[in-house]
Amino acid sequence: MNIVLIGSGNVATHLGMALNGAGKPIVQVYSQTLINAQKLALKVGAKATDTIVDIDTTASIYILSLKDDALEAVIKKMPEVKGVVVHTAGSVDMKVLNRFAKHGVFYPFQTFSIDKAVDFSTIPILWEAGSDSVVDILRTLASALSPHVHEVSSLQRGKLHIAAVFACNFVNHMYRMADELLLESELSFDLLKPLILETANKVMDMPPGETQTGPASRTDMKVIEKHRDMLKSNEPFYSTYNTITQLILSANNDY
Amino acid sequence: MNIVLIGSGNVATHLGMALNGAGKPIVQVYSQTLINAQKLALKVGAKATDTIVDIDTTASIYILSLKDDALEAVIKKMPEVKGVVVHTAGSVDMKVLNRFAKHGVFYPFQTFSIDKAVDFSTIPILWEAGSDSVVDILRTLASALSPHVHEVSSLQRGKLHIAAVFACNFVNHMYRMADELLLESELSFDLLKPLILETANKVMDMPPGETQTGPASRTDMKVIEKHRDMLKSNEPFYSTYNTITQLILSANNDY
Repeated sequence: MNIVLIGSGNVATHLGMALNGAGKPIVQVYSQTLINAQKLALKVGAKATDTIVDIDTTASIYILSLKDDALEAVIKKMPEVKGVVVHTAGSVDMKVLNRFAKHGVFYPFQTFSIDKAVDFSTIPILWEAGSDSVVDILRTLASALSPHVHEVSSLQRGKLHIAAVFACNFVNHMYRMADELLLESELSFDLLKPLILETANKVMDMPPGETQTGPASRTDMKVIEKHRDMLKSNEPFYSTYNTITQLILSANNDY
Repeated sequence: MNIVLIGSGNVATHLGMALNGAGKPIVQVYSQTLINAQKLALKVGAKATDTIVDIDTTASIYILSLKDDALEAVIKKMPEVKGVVVHTAGSVDMKVLNRFAKHGVFYPFQTFSIDKAVDFSTIPILWEAGSDSVVDILRTLASALSPHVHEVSSLQRGKLHIAAVFACNFVNHMYRMADELLLESELSFDLLKPLILETANKVMDMPPGETQTGPASRTDMKVIEKHRDMLKSNEPFYSTYNTITQLILSANNDY
């Protein structure tokens, strides 16, 4: 199983290193910026190229990890290949790869930061096959990285990606707003860390509908009014507080 | 150091058990519902009462862990005591305790669920003293539970409480919305768990301004439009998506 990596960003880098670590040979890395291709190629023992027509056409699998808007252009320009072509995007339908006889999706469901090591054995790998002929190779590739391997359709993957935006990207923005509030009061973000971990750990064991705490969840309007009063001079904070508090208050009535 | 616990909810229970475990004797538990006072009293080896005038007036510290609206009523009705009276509320000014000569605040900064064990040694304990004469007893009590002990004013505590609403309560609501989205697609919340833990773990080492990922943080309008389109039939999800996405897009421009 020879692999070509197309792209050199966070996902390509972490995925490439994990595949290399699992003994799957990566033969080539393509990036439109040669230095980026070279950096990743060095990490995974592969050759580097920035010339799309030079992509090795004899590999068994091509993994496209690119920003969504770069993806379509690269798909158009890629040479004919006989191997399986997959992308790793959460919100892109598999059908964009229709020009390749063998294609599919290979989506490691995690948030990747370039400098932070990732343990792939805990990450769900979601795959989708364009035809029966690629099922085995995708399942083998996924299983080499993680025991958590799931077949997921393009429609489901789209929904899952939105759920991840709420549970990861929006959550991080809440951390960021909390950080700003503390900064104003000259308090350290460190004070919040045990609370942040506990909030995440709770939903490992209980459904999030049962772990809701705080003034809105106990309909404590007295505290909510105090908070509104303290935030009213800070428009984004005030309106975000009101919007999410209202959602929690409404959810209370559903139970 | 004899302690009387006033209240029998999540905070009173976890705090009482931790104090008891640290060798601080709890002599009495008051709750307006006798069975609740008895349950907690049994756990901490104390006597129980539901009669406010029967509160032991010889204790050295009285810890009031009550809902904000019950707090004021109980403060009014409590007998005269010589010991230190503290409350454990995030958003209540210390001055509500002015009728007691010795008073202060003792605020364990964590989210408590009744059924989930809590390791107090990781929890910041925030204290505020109404007079110099209570500083030592509050600091001693806090240090018996945790190495993370901080003096924090009522104003700072109010801000910290709001920050906690964002970083904990609102975060949990984001988990809940993600859970609902997955339910619609017949996907398990389990798929999100590694992502949730990683998102929380990242901000242990890096400021949250540097860990933001996702379509809004890379100004990927193509994906954002796709998500809006998928959510448009679901009003609370659509408007929450738009509100927080807009905040992240604006934050991008700040850097």
